Amino acid sequence: MGSQNQDLGTETLEMLKWLGKYGEDPDGGISRFLYTQEWIDAMEALKNLFTEQGLSAKYDDVGNLFGRLEGSKYPNETIATGSHVDSVKSGGYYDGQYGIIAGYLAAKYLKEKYGQPLRNIDIVALAEEEGSRFTFGFWGTKNIVGAVSEEEVKDTTDFDGVPLTEAMEKAGFGIRKNGKGIPEDWKNWIELHVEQGGVLEIEETPIGVVQHIVGQRRYTIEVDGQANHAGTTPMKYRKDAMYAASSMIYQINKMAHEYGEPLVATVGKVQVTPNTVNVIPGKAVFTIDVRHTEKKDIIAFTERIEQMLKESAEQFGVGIDIDLWMDEDPVPMDQGIVQKIKEQCDKNNVSYKMMHSGAGHDTQLMAQHIPSAMLFVPSRDGISHNPAEYTEPQDLAQGVNVLIQTLYELAYT
Amino acid sequence: MGSQNQDLGTETLEMLKWLGKYGEDPDGGISRFLYTQEWIDAMEALKNLFTEQGLSAKYDDVGNLFGRLEGSKYPNETIATGSHVDSVKSGGYYDGQYGIIAGYLAAKYLKEKYGQPLRNIDIVALAEEEGSRFTFGFWGTKNIVGAVSEEEVKDTTDFDGVPLTEAMEKAGFGIRKNGKGIPEDWKNWIELHVEQGGVLEIEETPIGVVQHIVGQRRYTIEVDGQANHAGTTPMKYRKDAMYAASSMIYQINKMAHEYGEPLVATVGKVQVTPNTVNVIPGKAVFTIDVRHTEKKDIIAFTERIEQMLKESAEQFGVGIDIDLWMDEDPVPMDQGIVQKIKEQCDKNNVSYKMMHSGAGHDTQLMAQHIPSAMLFVPSRDGISHNPAEYTEPQDLAQGVNVLIQTLYELAYT
Repeated sequence: MGSQNQDLGTETLEMLKWLGKYGEDPDGGISRFLYTQEWIDAMEALKNLFTEQGLSAKYDDVGNLFGRLEGSKYPNETIATGSHVDSVKSGGYYDGQYGIIAGYLAAKYLKEKYGQPLRNIDIVALAEEEGSRFTFGFWGTKNIVGAVSEEEVKDTTDFDGVPLTEAMEKAGFGIRKNGKGIPEDWKNWIELHVEQGGVLEIEETPIGVVQHIVGQRRYTIEVDGQANHAGTTPMKYRKDAMYAASSMIYQINKMAHEYGEPLVATVGKVQVTPNTVNVIPGKAVFTIDVRHTEKKDIIAFTERIEQMLKESAEQFGVGIDIDLWMDEDPVPMDQGIVQKIKEQCDKNNVSYKMMHSGAGHDTQLMAQHIPSAMLFVPSRDGISHNPAEYTEPQDLAQGVNVLIQTLYELAYT
Repeated sequence: MGSQNQDLGTETLEMLKWLGKYGEDPDGGISRFLYTQEWIDAMEALKNLFTEQGLSAKYDDVGNLFGRLEGSKYPNETIATGSHVDSVKSGGYYDGQYGIIAGYLAAKYLKEKYGQPLRNIDIVALAEEEGSRFTFGFWGTKNIVGAVSEEEVKDTTDFDGVPLTEAMEKAGFGIRKNGKGIPEDWKNWIELHVEQGGVLEIEETPIGVVQHIVGQRRYTIEVDGQANHAGTTPMKYRKDAMYAASSMIYQINKMAHEYGEPLVATVGKVQVTPNTVNVIPGKAVFTIDVRHTEKKDIIAFTERIEQMLKESAEQFGVGIDIDLWMDEDPVPMDQGIVQKIKEQCDKNNVSYKMMHSGAGHDTQLMAQHIPSAMLFVPSRDGISHNPAEYTEPQDLAQGVNVLIQTLYELAYT
């Protein structure tokens, strides 16, 4: 399968470059935001591609694009695969795009080799996932599964003040009118994506089979001390907010290391006031991001953290405000599809790792409505959301191969 | 002395308000920067005040202003007192101004009560100390003591790109031409200043007699880890720069508390990159400010800190860059004058605290050339460099009284 894989890897890469032309950023990478001209051009290019390949192609009301390979026996049963077409600012050529291109190549290969499937296969270019233009993520999938209302986005604008609804209408789309939930014929959803982490690369494994998409809690912690002159205030008279915060940040990390995998906790943002070399910090604000595949662990860990924060604040004589502003549940993948994927990998001698997704994906919404699964391929140095994002062509090919085999199992048998 | 002190306190406060009119900031407080029109107006107002009081008044080349009460017996011996006329942005009414006004009131009182002194008394309005406009602090005193060259400031500009030399010439001054060091007739220097800290207030003591102005070392520490996705990077694969930095910042503070007074150490500034809730910090930069009255302690403490930083970096697997960019020696005050001040306080039943100055002052430069001393009065809540800066009128009066007594001892006996 060596040279065949090489060809498939090269073909996948060429198609990623081709689609990446729409929204190429002068600063590097791709900037392709919802309802911009680049976004419209990319969608139209995909629509033409689907049509040329003999797939029926149509948009839904808000602009999600579906290329369908019709099924012969079960016209009311559809296996859907794809990913999002939008990118972050100066994003890479793999995040999102790869799942669409891989779906297209898989359908093309299956059609060429096996002809018409028993069930329909939908290749989906989801309108938006990143929240880069409107800070409203998962716009595409939320519309497909019916998890968003017109009311929710009526005040949503981009950085130039353009309302989402106005941008949508200008692009030729509008608020969803037809249907209320996920399409009735959709039976399964599969998303192939780059890992956006370094685990597969470090462990030299070409395929990740996702078991869970993690749940997360995010906090903002404000520590209130007293700003004072760094030279004239003896240590005993200080209420140094950053001294207290440093102890808290250290403990959060230490407790996360001790709790064990797959728990991760990150203090990514720290802001000190007034943030001057010769003034004792009066205020320190920091964020906490906690993720795990099990809700009970998220709850248990964050309860300990909250307890520690309160005790530390008392110990340091500072005020504390604990603000939990995101609380998302973990989402398990469908074990039936996961089993089929594992069997196919075993049969074809493809090594894989059972893992979780530490990042959020469209699949976490799909999985709440239909049996869904997710596949990863390695990301070099774990880099994503960056022009340096890269996956080796043989890994791209391996991902497409596993997708082909899985779609075959689901749509042809 | 109650009602007399009340009058003197009121008079001092009125004069501070009067001088504070020059440079009043619409945002509150005083913004009076070197060689601005407000600065010129304040200096000219002081010059007129001095002249009206029968003092001879003159500027030196760069714009320091001297009001002289001539001595009868030792015309070549001068006792100098004063402080800086410039302020920070939105500074208070006491920092700097108080030392000039107090000197003027002391000279006026002494002249009225005792007539001509044996030695000259110079009331000095120093041109600049704060470094607020040109980020070149101590411009006034550095010129008086001959510690600055034309070469050093030729490229110094303000935030609008105006060169210091140009601003100086426009204000009617120029680079120092006459004399090379501190004036030969100057025998002593005394500066009265608000504490800019909370010790006198907390300890309910009206006068601080300074023994040392602290030395300081300032560092910038850069911790280099690896930025990565907060969700997809297991704890074991992380090089979190802020985790390492939090441990370092915690230990710096803890070690400073344990070292004991008068050592102070402050991490006032922390900057994380990229500083985003869902990205593991790749870089953390923070400052350290260490102060003590004894050089050997500054060296001993910072050696321990540097050692700890290197060990921590190794332990956390991160890179570290340790940049020592300020290293100033502590400056002791003249024990002869300090003794005279203590005697006068004891004689007049004024309670005082022997203390150090944790902040830098013009006196630290003067003291390297002639016997010098420094007096503090309390600052409410320790606040300074802020419109809320405040000293009770009776404390203002007490400071002027002790200055009167000290100048009497030095210039009249």
